[in-house]
Amino acid sequence: MGSIYGNKLKVSIFGQSHAAGIGVVIDGFPSGVKVDFDALTEFMERRAPGRNAQSTPRREADAPEFISGLSDGYTCGAPIAAIIRNTNTRSGDYNGFSDIPRPSHADYPALVKYGPHNDFSGGGHFSGRLTAPLCIAGALSIGLLKKNGINISARVIEIGGVTTSEEDMTAVIDAARAEGDSVGGVVECVAEGFPCGIGDPMFAGLENRIASAVFGIPAVRGIEFGLGFEAARLRGSEHNDAYTVEDGVIRTKTNNHGGIIGGISTGMPIVFRVPFKPTPSIAKEQDSVSVSSMEDRKIAIKGRHDPCIVRRAVPCVEAACAIALLDALLEDGYDLKTE
Amino acid sequence: MGSIYGNKLKVSIFGQSHAAGIGVVIDGFPSGVKVDFDALTEFMERRAPGRNAQSTPRREADAPEFISGLSDGYTCGAPIAAIIRNTNTRSGDYNGFSDIPRPSHADYPALVKYGPHNDFSGGGHFSGRLTAPLCIAGALSIGLLKKNGINISARVIEIGGVTTSEEDMTAVIDAARAEGDSVGGVVECVAEGFPCGIGDPMFAGLENRIASAVFGIPAVRGIEFGLGFEAARLRGSEHNDAYTVEDGVIRTKTNNHGGIIGGISTGMPIVFRVPFKPTPSIAKEQDSVSVSSMEDRKIAIKGRHDPCIVRRAVPCVEAACAIALLDALLEDGYDLKTE
Amino acid sequence: MGSIYGNKLKVSIFGQSHAAGIGVVIDGFPSGVKVDFDALTEFMERRAPGRNAQSTPRREADAPEFISGLSDGYTCGAPIAAIIRNTNTRSGDYNGFSDIPRPSHADYPALVKYGPHNDFSGGGHFSGRLTAPLCIAGALSIGLLKKNGINISARVIEIGGVTTSEEDMTAVIDAARAEGDSVGGVVECVAEGFPCGIGDPMFAGLENRIASAVFGIPAVRGIEFGLGFEAARLRGSEHNDAYTVEDGVIRTKTNNHGGIIGGISTGMPIVFRVPFKPTPSIAKEQDSVSVSSMEDRKIAIKGRHDPCIVRRAVPCVEAACAIALLDALLEDGYDLKTE
Amino acid sequence: MGSIYGNKLKVSIFGQSHAAGIGVVIDGFPSGVKVDFDALTEFMERRAPGRNAQSTPRREADAPEFISGLSDGYTCGAPIAAIIRNTNTRSGDYNGFSDIPRPSHADYPALVKYGPHNDFSGGGHFSGRLTAPLCIAGALSIGLLKKNGINISARVIEIGGVTTSEEDMTAVIDAARAEGDSVGGVVECVAEGFPCGIGDPMFAGLENRIASAVFGIPAVRGIEFGLGFEAARLRGSEHNDAYTVEDGVIRTKTNNHGGIIGGISTGMPIVFRVPFKPTPSIAKEQDSVSVSSMEDRKIAIKGRHDPCIVRRAVPCVEAACAIALLDALLEDGYDLKTE
Repeated sequence: MGSIYGNKLKVSIFGQSHAAGIGVVIDGFPSGVKVDFDALTEFMERRAPGRNAQSTPRREADAPEFISGLSDGYTCGAPIAAIIRNTNTRSGDYNGFSDIPRPSHADYPALVKYGPHNDFSGGGHFSGRLTAPLCIAGALSIGLLKKNGINISARVIEIGGVTTSEEDMTAVIDAARAEGDSVGGVVECVAEGFPCGIGDPMFAGLENRIASAVFGIPAVRGIEFGLGFEAARLRGSEHNDAYTVEDGVIRTKTNNHGGIIGGISTGMPIVFRVPFKPTPSIAKEQDSVSVSSMEDRKIAIKGRHDPCIVRRAVPCVEAACAIALLDALLEDGYDLKTE
Repeated sequence: MGSIYGNKLKVSIFGQSHAAGIGVVIDGFPSGVKVDFDALTEFMERRAPGRNAQSTPRREADAPEFISGLSDGYTCGAPIAAIIRNTNTRSGDYNGFSDIPRPSHADYPALVKYGPHNDFSGGGHFSGRLTAPLCIAGALSIGLLKKNGINISARVIEIGGVTTSEEDMTAVIDAARAEGDSVGGVVECVAEGFPCGIGDPMFAGLENRIASAVFGIPAVRGIEFGLGFEAARLRGSEHNDAYTVEDGVIRTKTNNHGGIIGGISTGMPIVFRVPFKPTPSIAKEQDSVSVSSMEDRKIAIKGRHDPCIVRRAVPCVEAACAIALLDALLEDGYDLKTE
Repeated sequence: MGSIYGNKLKVSIFGQSHAAGIGVVIDGFPSGVKVDFDALTEFMERRAPGRNAQSTPRREADAPEFISGLSDGYTCGAPIAAIIRNTNTRSGDYNGFSDIPRPSHADYPALVKYGPHNDFSGGGHFSGRLTAPLCIAGALSIGLLKKNGINISARVIEIGGVTTSEEDMTAVIDAARAEGDSVGGVVECVAEGFPCGIGDPMFAGLENRIASAVFGIPAVRGIEFGLGFEAARLRGSEHNDAYTVEDGVIRTKTNNHGGIIGGISTGMPIVFRVPFKPTPSIAKEQDSVSVSSMEDRKIAIKGRHDPCIVRRAVPCVEAACAIALLDALLEDGYDLKTE
Repeated sequence: MGSIYGNKLKVSIFGQSHAAGIGVVIDGFPSGVKVDFDALTEFMERRAPGRNAQSTPRREADAPEFISGLSDGYTCGAPIAAIIRNTNTRSGDYNGFSDIPRPSHADYPALVKYGPHNDFSGGGHFSGRLTAPLCIAGALSIGLLKKNGINISARVIEIGGVTTSEEDMTAVIDAARAEGDSVGGVVECVAEGFPCGIGDPMFAGLENRIASAVFGIPAVRGIEFGLGFEAARLRGSEHNDAYTVEDGVIRTKTNNHGGIIGGISTGMPIVFRVPFKPTPSIAKEQDSVSVSSMEDRKIAIKGRHDPCIVRRAVPCVEAACAIALLDALLEDGYDLKTE
């Protein structure tokens, strides 16, 4: 359980890294939306591995096949199902991991929860590869939001502690790879054009909804909205967003709340940041244990692994944000244009 | 919508700051648990206003009346309903707020969402006072978790940027009050003794569940688990939690993940931190607008307000954590001892 | 668990027959609806006991107190909470039932599920009295639906096998009472004016939604839509509802489907029937067992009990129908008029 | 929306009659259950068309391909996804139906709900073909329930009003086919060995749960439990199920309640009946309208259609029952044996 997101828009993700395939079922997506397959491909490409020197050499077509939910290229109101075949798998790399859990992977807690039949191969259902179906749902949602004037855009603002330039970030990644190590980073996401008055108080606030979607991406360690943790260090007089009228619309002069107050959108850009931990799969030798013998063991993870997944995570964060916002709009009965 | 949390344990919170009362319905709480009313009172006291020089002078009994769900002092399996009467209200303080929204309160987005019949008085359903019923549910959940060896404990680790000593934090609060201003802070929460293998991948991970509950507390601006944002600055070799065997149990040598990997508990302490923004109600004059005339206005918020709600938020964070963890245990069919 | 209904409109019912009270929390009810308290009282009166010679002499005010969710007599968008105090309880009547379960009451399965701390007194959470809070939610929903041209009306069509006249039905009830026995009956409900195109396929069809609400009423043993079981005996050419155009609107010439096809409304009246079993509480001696000694026992149920609850069930069926239909409309983002 | 069933076991069905395929995602199925593919095939065969002279000549392999959720033939705890390719489609048969809705099909309400992009071809997402993925989920659930001593078995008890013998029922079907007409019928389902004390009061009772699943099968017009509508005609003294002790176990002497009281199982066999309407697709000419011109039209439905789908519906009812009962067991944390 746990692989379904949403109330009105339900996104159900399935698949394991080395099963026959991975995919998604999207129930509740509005009818009559023309699917932009080029935009979808482009979006999927941003997440795909092996696109630059920094990322894993595993290269896959990752082209989704749509099984249902479309009619003549338009969404038809029925659940949209899409699958991606797993073709380039090398399960040999992962042999034996079931007895010696990889540090900071889900191997061990999954063994305790699911027992010995858990599919450990390549991370199974916990693999970062499962973000590909998330991106299918995200691309469709982003397309529909765009038609309604809502634009979502995320970017890397920090890698391995470096915030200066893209070249510096690349250098940090290269240095980590050279040492068989890895680095993490921070992604910031902004949704512009989101209407005021959407969301709910308490447990269905936009923060709760976005957080629930974003923590569905592996390696996410937190989330903060607006000024986030920095807000805790300011005075109320500094942090409060004063109101003003601009072009006949009520807006705030600052946007320290990142577009959400009381769980409800203010009409200002929605802004949040997400820290990603360094890739747990590293070539360096690590301490682990043998579950069967309960003895200490060493483990060095071979296989093909990104020293940094943060850049590839950018579209995943956009996808999670888009799904959460579209679900909130649908729940509020917001009148969405489909064309 | 939005005021119900949970899947197996459903916590439904109702009330407005100046309505007849506030309260909670808890559906799914196990039968046969003796309610410790002293512990409940003590827990509620930690959240109650007016307990020290730093907090608002509004003083209320806040003693919940249990309407249902108990039989001879034990939970009986039926939904537990409890209400707290609102007695000490001074709605006069809040007159006119519906036309001039208070900066960083939910007034304006709530007006857009709910229209002119929204109850603005004292913050209505968005008031921090609504954390009192959350604490009722939290106290019962904490009591049951304790019987099962799980202890939840939160504390203030930062106020107004100060992390040094309690006296220093108090000084920061006093300084803010003296200037008609307010400060925020950070709360850290630890759950010890939580069993390994509980939770779910993707959207029902323990992080998603805890985040969903915690963002139900007003003024929360983010959440991070384990090292959180700091993890993004470390190498994988530094951040990975190596396994070892200790007293016949598999544990990690470090706990940088804060007890959760892949959404599932590792058996290590669950650790997270939550930033609270400075109280938005400040005596200092602020810029706002008149919604009816669409003209700029000044607003100075009278009434009784805490210059810092962080200390009172500590039990609220514990409550949110307890509810989330108990719900996860119940969903996993974990065999809970009721005595 | 189990006492919450709905997706967008969430109706959470609490209380036990002999606890301090019973009540309801309604989350998601639209803001800005003026509550018609007279209509509410009148509606509650139809369900209340002791209104005629046929029903139980237990007489209660059953006037709900609204704790929250209203502002100046209008719904304000916050959860609506209402409680009814239990005043006229005679728990002495029920002593010992926990060891000797009453046939066809929930005593025994509830004992197995909840253990000895289950509140058996007066049926506890399983009592027919819990339909009072259902009727509060129903009355508010009916009021809002009416403003949108949707009228819900149920009536008794059969009691104790008698379908002829109200006098004949009364005679059947009187005969049963005279013998310390009870009778059941059938209620038919019609919703007129419900718009076409509302509902969902498969598991969220209007039938599924209405059935889920209606089975929340104790003593319901089934449900059928349109011709129901009779449809199974017809030819397709007899049962199919042919289309025609009437006053510029597409309608069906017959309404054998009771206004729902494929889970979605057709614009024709929604029609369904619900059988109620005879009241299980009868004065006649019955066979039961002692749970503690596992020996056969006789039981004769004293206390005050209706020989027939079917007439009082009529508003309950209307309430369940109204809640289900309003929830479906809200989920579909239907633009409801609040005035 | 609407194509996902369940709380702990979530069954998400997708596909249209003439799309690339149909399928199911099952999230929450326990880990470590060996899949009996022979039993699955056999179960699917019972539902498949073209198996006898009475049913539609459309013949399809209907062999599901498992995309995920299995590891070495065992369930692994990850969502189980299976698809069935649509191979034998003849969409030409259905041309023009979008403008002239077929009586008693979902064409017209679906057009109103989803607009012109709805996939009408072959019934789209509303087709009876969508019960094939339901049966995949059902077969797996039935297999797991069997390992726990729970056996589910449904059978036809009435076709076209005939209850006497299978030959008589066949004769009724043949007569209908000869006239280009169709007949309906009634299916009875029994679940034996289901433990006592499972289920919930009010809206999550076993009746609500089973009804919600069963109404997911097209053509279902009602449901009744135990004696159902007949119960409404009995006296309480006739209908009440007296308790007794049998082989050291508390049982009821009769089972008029069909194994469920107060929404909770009694330990007696769960019994319910479901009426199916006659197949709406008939060769006989019918009255309909042109949606574009709003004029009356005649329609005669060609294509391949069963004159009676009741026999093929039997495994679908078993599947719906199994899914509902397994979900209830999982929600109650019942300790299921996987071997």
